[in-house]
Amino acid sequence: MESPSARRRVYQVLEVAHHGDRLSRGVDVALIALVAGNVAAVMAESVEPLHRAHRGLFDVFESVSVAVFSVEYFLRVWSAAERAPGEAPAWRERLRWVLSPMALADLAAILPFFLSAVVGLDLRFLRVLRLLRIFKLTRYSGSLTLLLEVFRSQRRAYVASLFVLMMVLVVAASGIYLVEREAQPAAFGSIPTSMWWALVTLTTVGYGDVTPITTWGKVFAGGVTLVGVGVVALPTAILASGFLTIAQRNHERLSSDAADAAADGYVSREESERYRELAERLGVPPEVAAEIMATAADAASAVGACPHCGKDPFEA
Amino acid sequence: MESPSARRRVYQVLEVAHHGDRLSRGVDVALIALVAGNVAAVMAESVEPLHRAHRGLFDVFESVSVAVFSVEYFLRVWSAAERAPGEAPAWRERLRWVLSPMALADLAAILPFFLSAVVGLDLRFLRVLRLLRIFKLTRYSGSLTLLLEVFRSQRRAYVASLFVLMMVLVVAASGIYLVEREAQPAAFGSIPTSMWWALVTLTTVGYGDVTPITTWGKVFAGGVTLVGVGVVALPTAILASGFLTIAQRNHERLSSDAADAAADGYVSREESERYRELAERLGVPPEVAAEIMATAADAASAVGACPHCGKDPFEA
Amino acid sequence: MESPSARRRVYQVLEVAHHGDRLSRGVDVALIALVAGNVAAVMAESVEPLHRAHRGLFDVFESVSVAVFSVEYFLRVWSAAERAPGEAPAWRERLRWVLSPMALADLAAILPFFLSAVVGLDLRFLRVLRLLRIFKLTRYSGSLTLLLEVFRSQRRAYVASLFVLMMVLVVAASGIYLVEREAQPAAFGSIPTSMWWALVTLTTVGYGDVTPITTWGKVFAGGVTLVGVGVVALPTAILASGFLTIAQRNHERLSSDAADAAADGYVSREESERYRELAERLGVPPEVAAEIMATAADAASAVGACPHCGKDPFEA
Amino acid sequence: MESPSARRRVYQVLEVAHHGDRLSRGVDVALIALVAGNVAAVMAESVEPLHRAHRGLFDVFESVSVAVFSVEYFLRVWSAAERAPGEAPAWRERLRWVLSPMALADLAAILPFFLSAVVGLDLRFLRVLRLLRIFKLTRYSGSLTLLLEVFRSQRRAYVASLFVLMMVLVVAASGIYLVEREAQPAAFGSIPTSMWWALVTLTTVGYGDVTPITTWGKVFAGGVTLVGVGVVALPTAILASGFLTIAQRNHERLSSDAADAAADGYVSREESERYRELAERLGVPPEVAAEIMATAADAASAVGACPHCGKDPFEA
Repeated sequence: MESPSARRRVYQVLEVAHHGDRLSRGVDVALIALVAGNVAAVMAESVEPLHRAHRGLFDVFESVSVAVFSVEYFLRVWSAAERAPGEAPAWRERLRWVLSPMALADLAAILPFFLSAVVGLDLRFLRVLRLLRIFKLTRYSGSLTLLLEVFRSQRRAYVASLFVLMMVLVVAASGIYLVEREAQPAAFGSIPTSMWWALVTLTTVGYGDVTPITTWGKVFAGGVTLVGVGVVALPTAILASGFLTIAQRNHERLSSDAADAAADGYVSREESERYRELAERLGVPPEVAAEIMATAADAASAVGACPHCGKDPFEA
Repeated sequence: MESPSARRRVYQVLEVAHHGDRLSRGVDVALIALVAGNVAAVMAESVEPLHRAHRGLFDVFESVSVAVFSVEYFLRVWSAAERAPGEAPAWRERLRWVLSPMALADLAAILPFFLSAVVGLDLRFLRVLRLLRIFKLTRYSGSLTLLLEVFRSQRRAYVASLFVLMMVLVVAASGIYLVEREAQPAAFGSIPTSMWWALVTLTTVGYGDVTPITTWGKVFAGGVTLVGVGVVALPTAILASGFLTIAQRNHERLSSDAADAAADGYVSREESERYRELAERLGVPPEVAAEIMATAADAASAVGACPHCGKDPFEA
Repeated sequence: MESPSARRRVYQVLEVAHHGDRLSRGVDVALIALVAGNVAAVMAESVEPLHRAHRGLFDVFESVSVAVFSVEYFLRVWSAAERAPGEAPAWRERLRWVLSPMALADLAAILPFFLSAVVGLDLRFLRVLRLLRIFKLTRYSGSLTLLLEVFRSQRRAYVASLFVLMMVLVVAASGIYLVEREAQPAAFGSIPTSMWWALVTLTTVGYGDVTPITTWGKVFAGGVTLVGVGVVALPTAILASGFLTIAQRNHERLSSDAADAAADGYVSREESERYRELAERLGVPPEVAAEIMATAADAASAVGACPHCGKDPFEA
Repeated sequence: MESPSARRRVYQVLEVAHHGDRLSRGVDVALIALVAGNVAAVMAESVEPLHRAHRGLFDVFESVSVAVFSVEYFLRVWSAAERAPGEAPAWRERLRWVLSPMALADLAAILPFFLSAVVGLDLRFLRVLRLLRIFKLTRYSGSLTLLLEVFRSQRRAYVASLFVLMMVLVVAASGIYLVEREAQPAAFGSIPTSMWWALVTLTTVGYGDVTPITTWGKVFAGGVTLVGVGVVALPTAILASGFLTIAQRNHERLSSDAADAAADGYVSREESERYRELAERLGVPPEVAAEIMATAADAASAVGACPHCGKDPFEA
C-alpha cells in the first residue's frame, strides 16, 4: 500500500501545481471551486426561504463536499511523508503536517460534520461554521506569502501599537463616562458600556448611534477623534514600513543569488530553476525576478540565453 | 486618399500635443472642453426641471458631440497606421489601436447613441451612460502614467489583500448574523443581508444605519472595527510601498541614461530630447529630470549649455 | 528718512528672530499673541450673547488690532528693501514682497476693515473673514517649510489623484442615481444631488444621513465603499512617498555640504553658520543636522570643537 | 541599612528582567497582573450593580494594591541609586528618577488614595483616576521604545501638521457657520458650536449627528470632507516616514557595531553581549539583530561559533 511512486504522485498533485502539471492544476481548480461553492451554499442557506425551498439539495451538496474534503484530508496525511523523503520517518512528517495551520484549517472543514453526527448540536451554528472552509483557499494564493511575511516581521510593532490602543481606549472610555454619564446614562452609564463609543470613534468608523451631547462631552470627544486619527495611522505606517523593508531585503537576496549564479559566465538550467523557486518562496513576482536576473547577468556578461536550445532561461 | 503626409499630420494633431505644436494643443483643449461640457450636460439633464425646460438644447448639444466624437474616432483609426510606420502593415496597427483601452473608451462614447437609434432602449439609462465619456480625458493626464504604473506593479499584492478582505468580510458577516439575527432580523436576518453592515464597518465608512444593539453584538462588532483599521491600512501601505519603489527605479533609470548621455563630455540635442522623452514616459516631472541630468553632467564635467546657441539644453 | 541702519534693524526685528535677538523674539511673540487673540475674539463674537454683552470691548480690540497690523504691514513694505541690499533697487524688492503669499495674507488681515468703512458690507461676513488672520502665523512655523516642500514636490501626483477622484465621483453619483432614484427621490433624484452621498462615502466620512435602501443600491454602494478605501489611500501614499524622498534628498544635500566644510580638516565658524542656515532652510531639525555634521567631521578627521574657544560649534 | 549588595539586588529585581533572572521575572509578572487586575476592578466598579454588590471586596483589593504599589515606589526610590553607582551621589540619582515620566506614573498610581484620605474629594472621580495605573505597564513593553523614538524624531512634523489642522479647523467651522447658521441655529449657531461638526468631519469619523442640509452647506461640506482625507493622510505619512528612517538608522548603527565587533575575526562574549544590549535599546527584534551580525561576521570571515563551547553566540 505504501507504494512510494504513487504516494509521490499524490503529493505532487495535491500540492499547488507546478508549471506544466495539468492534473495537479485541474485538482487545484476543482478544490477551489468546491470551496467557493461551499461558501456560496452556506450564505444561501442562511436566507430562510431559500433554505426551506431547497433543503434536500443543500444536504446532498454538504455530504458530497464533506466526502471530498475527507478524502483530500486523508490523502494529504498519507502523502505528507513525501515532503522530505529520507530525512525523517514518515510518521514524524505526517504529525508535523497534521499540526500545521494549513492542516488544522483542513480538519476544521470536516470535523463539525462528524461532531454533529455524534453530539446533538445547534445546527444553525454548525452550518455557519462551515464558512471557515474559506481558509482552505489560503494555500493557493502565492502573494499571501508576502503579506504574512510583512505581518510576521512587524509583529512586535503591532503588539506595541495594540497596547497603545488599549491604553487610549481605557482612557477615552473612562473620560467620556465621567463627563457624559449623567446626561446619557444608557450609553455612558459605566466604563464597559462607554467602550463601544470609544472604539467606534478611535477607529474613525463613527456610526453615530451614540454621540456626546453635553458641551464638555463634545470637547473631550473632539480630542478623542484627533487621537483616533493617530490610532488609525499607526498600523498603516507600520505596514508600509514593513512592506518596504521586506521588498528591499528580497531584492537584495535575489540580487545576491543572481550574481552568484551568473558569476561563472553562464546561468545553468538548475541555477535558473533554483533562482525561480527562491523568488516564488519570497513572494516576488516573476517579472521582477527576471529583471533582477537580467541585470545580474548583464553585469557579469553572462550568457543570456541557453547555448543549447537558444531560449531565454528566465521567461515564464 | 492614403496620403502619408496628411495622415502623419492628423496623427500628430490628435496625439497629446508636443511642445510648440499650437494646432495640436488647440485640438486637445477643444476636445477636453467638449468632454467636460458633455459631463456637465448629462448632470444637468438628470435634474428634471432643467431637462424639461431645455430639452431641445440638450438634444442639439448631444448630436453635435456625437458627430465630433465620431469624426475623431474615425480619424484616429485612420491615422493609427502612423504609430510605427514601416514596422507593421497599416491594418494591423489600426486593429491594435481599436482594441486598446483608450480606443474602447472612445468607442463607448459614441456607440450608445447609434445603438439607441437602432434598438429602442431606456433613454434615461443611456443618457447617464454618456458620463463614461469622462474616461476619454485619461489620455491627456501625463501624471496618471505614474499612478497606473504603481497600480500595475502592485497588482499581486492588491489581489492578495482583496482576498484577505473577502475572507474577513465573510467571517464578519456570518459572525454578526449569528449574534444579532434574533435581535434585529431585518438587518441581520441572513448572511448576505449582514454583509452590508460588515462592508460599511470594515471600510470604516460607518453610516450607522445598521448597528448592533445586543452586548455580544457590540463586542463582536468592536473586534470587527479593529480589523477594519487593518483592512484600510493594507491598500495604503501597498500603494506607498509601490510609489517609493517606482520612484527609486525611475530615478535609477534616468540617472543611468543621463550618465550615458554625459559620458562623452557633451549632451547633444538628440540625447537631451531622448532623455526628456524617457522622463515623460516614466511620468517623472521635468524639473526633477532636469536636476538628475544636471547632477550627471556635473559628475562627468559635461558641457552644461549648448556650444552653438548657448542656451541650457535642459530648460523647459 | 531712509536711514539704512534703522531700516536694517526694523527688517531684522520683523523677520523671524535669530538666535539671541531678544527684541526680535519679543516682537514675534507679541504678534503671535495678537493673532491668537484675534482668532479667539472672532470666535467669541460669533456667540450671540457674548457679542451683545461686550460689543464695545470687541470693537476696541478690533481697532487696536487693525492699527497694529497696519503699522506692521507698512514697516514690512519699507524694510523689505533690506532683503538683498545692493542687488536690486529698493522699489523692486518692495514690489516683490508685496506680491508674495505672505504679504497678501498680511494685506488680507487689514483690508476688510478699511473696505467696510468705505463700502457698506454685511458686517457678520466681514467679521468672520478676520479669521483668515490666522494665516499670518505660517511665517513663524519653521517646520511648515518641510510640509509645503513635500506638497510642492508631489503636486503632479495630487492633480492626478484628484482627477481619479473626480472620475470615480461622477461614476459613483450617476450609478447610485440610476438604482436609487425611484426609492429615494429626495436624496438621489438627480446626479448633482447624489454627489453629496458619493463624496461622503468615498472619503469614508460616512455620515449616514443618506444611505441606499434598495438591494441593488446597497450592492453598488458596497463597491463604492471599497473604492473609497483606495481613494483615501492615494493621498496618504503620495504624501508618505514625498516625505521620504525629501528626507533622503535633504540628508544627501546636508551630507555633501558637511563633507565640503570638513574636507580641510577644520569646520570654521562661517562654514558652520552657513551649514546651519542650509539646514534651517531645508526644514531639517537642528539635532539631525548636527548628527550629520558630526559624522562628516568624523570621516574627515576634522576638528570637532573650535580650537579658539573650545566649544562645540554645532550645539544649539 | 544602606547595604549596597541588597540594594543592587532590589534594583535588578525591580528592573525589567534580564534573560535568566527568575525572581526578577516573577516580580515583573506579578506587578503586571496587579495592574491588569486594578484596571479590571475600576471598570467593574463603574457598573453600578456590581459596585453595590461587592463594595467590600473592591475596597480590600484597592487597599492591598495601594500598599503594594507604595512599597514598590519606595523600593524604586531607594534602589535608584544603583543606576550608575559611583558616578553621582545617591540622592541625585534618586531625584533624577523621581522626576522621570515613569516615576511620575508610579506616583500618580498611589497619590490619589492618600489625597482622598486627607481632603474630601468626589470619590467617583478618584476611582476612575486609578485607571491611569495602566501607564505603569509601559515599562514592560520593549517595542514601545521604537514607537516613542519614532514619535520623538518626528515631533516637529507633528507640531506643523497640528498647526495645519488648527487652521483648517477654524476655516471649516467658520465657513459652515456662515452658510448653515440660519437653517440650523442649534448646531451651527456660532463658530465654537460648529467646531464639533468640523472636527468630526475632518477626522473622517463622520457621526452624522449634525450634517449640513442647505445646498451651499453641502457644497462647502463636500470640500471639507476632501480636505479631511488630507488631514488624516498627514500623520500617517509622517509616521511611516519616521518608521522607515529610524529602521534604516538602527540598521546602520547595528551594522557598524557588528562590523567593529567582527573586525578582529572573532566575536567575543562581551562584544556579543554589548551588541545584544544595543539592539535591545534600539528596539530592534533579536532575530533581525542576529541576521545583521551574521552578515557582518560573514563579511569579515569572523568565527560564527564560540571556539570554546561551540555554540552560536547570537542565538537567543
